[in-house]
Order: sequence, then structure tokens, then C-alpha cells
Amino acid sequence: MAGMTHEAVERLKAHMAPIVDLYAAGSVLSWDQQTHMPPGGGRARAEQLATLRRLSHEMFTAPRTRELLEAAEADTARLDPDSDEAALIRMTRRDYDRATKLPAEFVAERTRAQATSVEVWRRARPANDFALFHPHLEQMVGFARRTADYLGYEDHPYDALLDLFEPQMTSREVTALFAELRERTVPLVRAIGERREVVDAAFLTHEYEEAKQEAFARAVVERFGYDFSRGGLARAPHPFATGFSRDDVRITTRFDRRYLPSAVFAIFHEAGHAMYGQGSSPTLERTSLAGGAGLGVHESQSRMWENLVGRSRPFWQHYFPRLREVFPEQLADVDAETFYRAVNRVSPSLIRVEADEVTYNLHIILRYELERALLEGTLAARDLPEAWNARMQEFLGVVPPTDADGVMQDIHWSAGQIGYFPTYTLGNVMSAQLFEAARRAHPALMDEIGRGEFGTLLGWLREQVHVHGRKFFPQDLLERATGSRLTSEPYLRYLWQKYGEIYGVAPERTAVTGRA
Amino acid sequence: MAGMTHEAVERLKAHMAPIVDLYAAGSVLSWDQQTHMPPGGGRARAEQLATLRRLSHEMFTAPRTRELLEAAEADTARLDPDSDEAALIRMTRRDYDRATKLPAEFVAERTRAQATSVEVWRRARPANDFALFHPHLEQMVGFARRTADYLGYEDHPYDALLDLFEPQMTSREVTALFAELRERTVPLVRAIGERREVVDAAFLTHEYEEAKQEAFARAVVERFGYDFSRGGLARAPHPFATGFSRDDVRITTRFDRRYLPSAVFAIFHEAGHAMYGQGSSPTLERTSLAGGAGLGVHESQSRMWENLVGRSRPFWQHYFPRLREVFPEQLADVDAETFYRAVNRVSPSLIRVEADEVTYNLHIILRYELERALLEGTLAARDLPEAWNARMQEFLGVVPPTDADGVMQDIHWSAGQIGYFPTYTLGNVMSAQLFEAARRAHPALMDEIGRGEFGTLLGWLREQVHVHGRKFFPQDLLERATGSRLTSEPYLRYLWQKYGEIYGVAPERTAVTGRA
Repeated sequence: MAGMTHEAVERLKAHMAPIVDLYAAGSVLSWDQQTHMPPGGGRARAEQLATLRRLSHEMFTAPRTRELLEAAEADTARLDPDSDEAALIRMTRRDYDRATKLPAEFVAERTRAQATSVEVWRRARPANDFALFHPHLEQMVGFARRTADYLGYEDHPYDALLDLFEPQMTSREVTALFAELRERTVPLVRAIGERREVVDAAFLTHEYEEAKQEAFARAVVERFGYDFSRGGLARAPHPFATGFSRDDVRITTRFDRRYLPSAVFAIFHEAGHAMYGQGSSPTLERTSLAGGAGLGVHESQSRMWENLVGRSRPFWQHYFPRLREVFPEQLADVDAETFYRAVNRVSPSLIRVEADEVTYNLHIILRYELERALLEGTLAARDLPEAWNARMQEFLGVVPPTDADGVMQDIHWSAGQIGYFPTYTLGNVMSAQLFEAARRAHPALMDEIGRGEFGTLLGWLREQVHVHGRKFFPQDLLERATGSRLTSEPYLRYLWQKYGEIYGVAPERTAVTGRA
Repeated sequence: MAGMTHEAVERLKAHMAPIVDLYAAGSVLSWDQQTHMPPGGGRARAEQLATLRRLSHEMFTAPRTRELLEAAEADTARLDPDSDEAALIRMTRRDYDRATKLPAEFVAERTRAQATSVEVWRRARPANDFALFHPHLEQMVGFARRTADYLGYEDHPYDALLDLFEPQMTSREVTALFAELRERTVPLVRAIGERREVVDAAFLTHEYEEAKQEAFARAVVERFGYDFSRGGLARAPHPFATGFSRDDVRITTRFDRRYLPSAVFAIFHEAGHAMYGQGSSPTLERTSLAGGAGLGVHESQSRMWENLVGRSRPFWQHYFPRLREVFPEQLADVDAETFYRAVNRVSPSLIRVEADEVTYNLHIILRYELERALLEGTLAARDLPEAWNARMQEFLGVVPPTDADGVMQDIHWSAGQIGYFPTYTLGNVMSAQLFEAARRAHPALMDEIGRGEFGTLLGWLREQVHVHGRKFFPQDLLERATGSRLTSEPYLRYLWQKYGEIYGVAPERTAVTGRA
């Protein structure tokens, strides 16, 4: 920015600002829909959101955008490639090409089919009726294939879809990464299982008053650095974070009075997302560069605060005494170490969102393999349950008794979101890679966390990740921050060290060194 | 609607629907701004709202609207003038002419000056610094005059401004109505003052727990018929009602733990507004006819539920025992009659929003007279305090010790809202006129209210007022519902009967009969 004015870029920015405003307005309406809107409001809200989306799409795909973009691109040579301006041009080009590749009628048709499919899923899941759902799922796969065809890809249609959520990541890279994760996680799961250790966690299911859960978790995330004067916490059926500007990034959660970790870790998690948004550079406001580099990097922030910080031993050494002051009766017979082990209990389970850190990625890898097979046509939607259950047995040694707890557990596929799941695991992997780099830069980091101090970590993340918003592609950002592109080593190291220690498992036998 | 399709009208409706969506989206953003938005969110929110307003204005004032409107107007002869279609054409024409009369640059300039003026008022009021504020007020008067000039008027510039808030009402009518109200209210205020009655109301300032206030008032307005499945109650610094469709009309309030009536009557009041919105015909959805006929009719609904119902003796005969169950200690020594008298205490006071039913309109009449003088140029903004205080002495016998509690007490003028105040009193007058008509149609109405039953009243209002949305002009609507155009008789009758009885004042000496 400093000094020179690039008129063409300024004109592009001025053109884009109201489009960004419309997206933000849509996000406010969605937030309201999930937090405060009464049941009756749904019908009109759908129209209002559709209008906002249609208008912003029309304004963005108008010829005027292309003209301004081309004029700005002609100027690019004069710009520092790391500047906000160069990034704005780069990302606007990327977005513009994507937005103009999908015909409006196709998008409209897909949107309608998705709405129906989600609706059917909502009925089919509680009824455990996969036969009702699979024709819609088949349709969603068809739309995903056509979307990939419109967007174009070199190697595999999956690449085109994945790129929507994780820019520039390829299916080839994901396959390699996931193969390694799977190879080196399954033995850890087995070794832990063989220990047959009984972890005392019954106290987590005592009665925990909601208001007190909230007060505790709010105080923690405020210490993390989540700024409530530029945020807020509301109740919603499913926890999420959303932002309308860097100075208004909100989180939501649900509370379970009979399971303490549910809301507490959800609040840590969502605050991780929200701090990313709050740390975005003010110079990126009202541009499409405000926001995260991709879903993987976003998830790395939420998982880091939830798990690498929030489920660490130093963290609970500091915070357990405070938690016990809030819930003296429920935690009367518990100490910090017992609590630490309870919230890190490893146990193969059926439901992804309830999975522990060790088994979580196996749920994702399973979905990824099935998504690819569906896209390739080597697996039909109707045959999914069998393929699902076989992999559950193979990866985790458990088989869902019903499809409701199996192949129909997630909303994503019903909404046509194919290519999305890998970003959860990419986020886990990135979280450890970034955390390791932060610890290299600040060797006393864990000691600070053990004193309830998080400023050094947040400061490092702000500088290395948050401030850049969406300026850089995920792996470029990782490389700037950590010195290397995506690697599973730090995450596998983290898992084996932490859980090996908790469960008394021998060091990894097949560990490959010197990779990262 | 039934049967025949009028293609031209349908095309106009389809064109208008997304414009209505944008207005609704803006209302959601405003609601959020006043209820849940963190302090940091203000800057971006202003941009988002400005973008939504600009886009909807551009879409509405585009040549396409005029073309579709003219095509639809060519069809008007074939339509029943009472049909939704005819009303849509009528009101769209009205809105279009207004929207296109004000040059965009003028509106932009006015909006900026208003923002500054409100800002200065916010500082000047607590500092009691009228000298700081009056140049901005003078500017606002200038903008109001120019607005009137752009919009055009026959008789008085005030007409053009009043018409924005109270369609088709003229300043001549208001002047006549207000003269009568003033003439016949001041004697009542004097007579009550002369009684020197000491009303026991100290118990209203005990400590009343917020959550219990809320639960009580919610239960009442739910009985009124406010549908929470299509609404909701949130906290805001100033109570208001707002709607995003007939199926999502929300209310807000603030709570004062040390003054019970504050939130309770605010909730009754806002629920009155909200039930109007909820009762709008479904056929008017996504048209500019959803909403109220004008601010006066809107205020008639809120004041009716707040005062004619909510401050009536039958109401408290039913509800006081329930309220005492909620606050047994605070109300231990109070009975229903004492409570009724306390919440109807008449006492000339300085602040409009705290005024009782009898003196309230005098506050409005005072403002109306000053507004006209400002517009005519016979009064300069700098001389307002003197004119204000002289009228306060004349009307109410009290003089504000400071301008903060005098001429600077309301936000309206600082925001350039000249022509707005009369609608409060018009609402009061209409509320009594409508209520009398409802009682004529249902003689047992007050008995039902005394049993906590409100279905007959709400049903009558739905049918006579709510269902029509904005289809008819206020006085046409009144005439359909009550058999006559606006008249002050029912309201004056109501005031003299109710307060004459409470204070033991002799019947009105100058009563004119046979008017309405």
C-alpha cells in the first residue's frame, strides 16, 4: 500500500467493496438464522439469502469486473508480488474464473436439488432409511462430477472440488498424505487398544450448570486473546464461527449439561477460528482477502487452540484448579492429571464429531476414499453402507449398527459437499506443523501455557498467519511460517508422543526420520 | 388475486420482490446492530447498511421500475380498487415518485450531515451544550425545507414532510386536531393538579428481578396473541419492534430493576406493533404492501395494547394477582386498585417518553408548533430553548432546569426527522377511535379483558386493520374500520372518563357532542 497509488487496483477495490458487503450481509442473515430467528422466519429468510447471493453473484460476474480486473492485471508487473494489491488481483482472478465457469442455470438447478437432498436426509437419518436417501446422494455425486467438469482439472475430478475448499491442493497430495497418516495411526490405535486401560471419565457426565460452563470457557478464550469487544458468543444447534468484518467475528455453541467437554472444547475450537478472523490485517477490510487462506488453515487454528493448547497437560495444570473452583462438587475427587487423561481418552467410536484426536483422521480418510470412488463411478451410492462398514471394521475395529450412525451421520454429502472432508484432517496436520514452528521460535511456549499465558503464541500466529488473511495460498503460507510445505511428520510426532506417554505405548517402530 | 392473472402486475411484483428482500436484509442488520453486535462491529456495519440501501434505491429508481409500473397502470381499470393488485400499483407509484424526486447527491449529502448532527447531539446533550448543537439543528431544518421543496406541497412545507410518515395527512388537519386536543386536555391536567391527590406508587421502585419481569410480560403478550414462533424478545438500549416478514416480527426492550413499569409496558407496547406485522395478509409478502398503513396507525396498535388494554382496570383486576405471585414481597401491601392507580398516575413532567397518557400529547403538540415555526423561518434554531420553555410553562406548568431535559431530550430533530412527532399523538387518537369501534362491535370486550381473554379484540383488529398491511391510506383504513375519518372525540372521551373517575374530576364542561 505504502505511498504509491495504483489507480487500476483502487478502482477494482472500489468495485469489489459492495460485493463484499453483500456477502457480509448474507453472513449476518445466516448467523441470525442459526441463533435467534424464530421457526416461522425460515421461508422469508431463504428468499432474502437467495436474493443477496444472486445479486452479489451478478455484480461479481458482470463484464465490469473483467474489465477492471484486466486493467489491474496490466499493472501487476509494477507491484510487489507480496503486496496486498498483487494478492487482490491474483485472488480476484481466481474467484472470477471460478464464478464465471459455472452456468447460472446449472447453479440454480444444483441449489434446488441440494435443498431437496438435505431435506430428505433430515427425514431419512432418524428413520435409518438409506434407501430413501441414496437416489438423492447419487444425484449429488452427479452434480459434483458436472461441477468438476465445468471447473476443469488436470488429473482427477476430485482436484477441481478439493480446490474450492483447499486452494491449489491436489488429490494426489492428499492421497499420499492420508496413506502415511493411516499407516502410522492405525498401529497407534491398536497399541492403545491392547493396553486395555480403563480411563476414569465418568465425572465428565455429572450435572454441569450451563451458565457456569459458559463463564469458565468465556474466561479462558478471553485469555487466549479472543476479543469480545469485536466478537460474541451465542447459542446455536451446531457450533460455528462467522465473521462480518475483522472487528465482528462471532462464535456459537450448544451446551450439554451432562457432558462437560462438549461446550468447553467447542468454545475453544470456535474461538480459534474467530481469532484468525480478528487478526486479519485492517488493510484487507472490504476486500475478498479478508478471511482465511482455506478451510485447512482455518481448521488448523481451531484445532490448535482446542487440542494442542486446550487439551495439553500444562493447560490443565493451570486451569484445572480454576475449573474445580467453579464445580467443586462434581470434581471433588478429581485431580489435574485425571482430568487431563479423561479429556484425552482414546476410544474407537462410530461418530466423527465425537472422535478423539487419534482416531479422528481415520474417519476422514474413510470418507475421502469413498468420495473418490463415488466420483470415479467405481462405487454406486446404493452400495455405500457396505463399503462404509467394511472400512470402519478395518480402520477402527467397530461397525455401526445402523446407517444413521454410519454412512448417514454427516450432513455434508447430502448438501453435495464432496471434497470438503479432507480439510478437517489437513487442519489437524497443519495445526501441529504450525505449533512446532511456534515452539521452535519460542522454546518456552509450553511453560507460558502452563501459566495461563497465551500472548506469545497468539502473537506468533497473528504475524505468521492471521494478518495475511487470504493473501497467500495455504501451502505458501505454511512454507513462510514453518519453512516447509505440508508435512505429516509434526502431527504424527505429536500423536505418538502425547498418546504414547498417556497410554504407556512403546515409541513408534516404523518412524521415518529426517522427512520434514 | 383469486383466479385472474394480471401479467403486468405479476411482472411488477417479481421486479419488486428482491428490492423488498434487500430492505428486509437491512432491517435484520439494523436489529442485530441494536441487539447483539459488539462495539467493534459498527464501522463495517455502516458500510454494509449503506450498500444495501444504495442498491435497493438504485434498483427501485431504475427505468425498469417505471416501465413495469406504467404497464401495470395501463391495466388498472380492469382491477377491483380494493384488490391487492390495485393497491400494489397505487403504493408503488407513490413510493416511486417520492424516491425519484430527491436527487441522489442531495440524499447523500443529507445522510452525511444527519450522521454528524446525531453525533454532535450525543455529545451536546449530556454536556447540556445547546450552543454546540444548534448550528446542526439549523442545518437539519434547512435540509427539511429542501426536502419539502423537492417533494412538493400545496399548502405548507410541513405537509410534504408529514406525508412521509403519515400518508395523505395535512398539516391543516393536524393543526385543527391538536388545537382541540390542547384546548380540552389542559383543563383536565389542571383539574387533576388541583385535586392534589397523593398517589401511592413508591412500591413500583422496589427491586424487581429482570428475569421475572420478563417472564411475566412474555406470558401476558403471548396471551394477547403475539406469536413467539414468529417473533422473539431481545434486549436493546431502546425498545423497538421490527419485522423481516409477517412470520418474523421481533420486539426488544430494556429492563429497569428499580422501576417495574418500564419494561412491562414497553413489552406490551412493542408487542402491539409486532402483532400488526404478524397479522398482515400472506398475499402481501415480498411486496411493499406488507407493513403498516403509516406510523400513526402503527402507534395506535402499540398504544392500544399498552394503554387501553394494559393500563385498564379490568386488565389489572385479572393480572395483578398473578403479578403478586411473581413478586410477593414487593407487592405485599398492594391491591389491584392501588396498582391500577399507580400505573395511571398523572403528573406533568419534563420528559416525553416518561409522560402519562393525559399529558403525553401536550409534549407532542409543543414539538409540532415549534417544528412548523422552524420550517416557516419564524423561529431560529438558536432561539428554541426559550420557545420550548415558555410552552412547557403554558401547557404543563413545569420548566426544564436544563436544555438536556428540555429541547435536547429527543433524538428525532438531530436526525432531521421533522414531521415525525405528530404521529405519536395521531396514534393515541386512533387507538381510542379503533377501540371504541371494537367495543361497539363486541360490547363484552372489557369483560373478556377482565378474564384475561384477548382473542375477540385481536380478531377484530386482524380483520379490520392488520390483514390490510399498507393497502389503504390511514384515514381510509380508519373509515372502513370505524365508520368515520380521524376524530379526537373517542380519545378525549376516554381520557376524561378514565382519569375523571380516577381523580374524581367533574365531567368535562366544554364537551362537544355528536361529532364523531
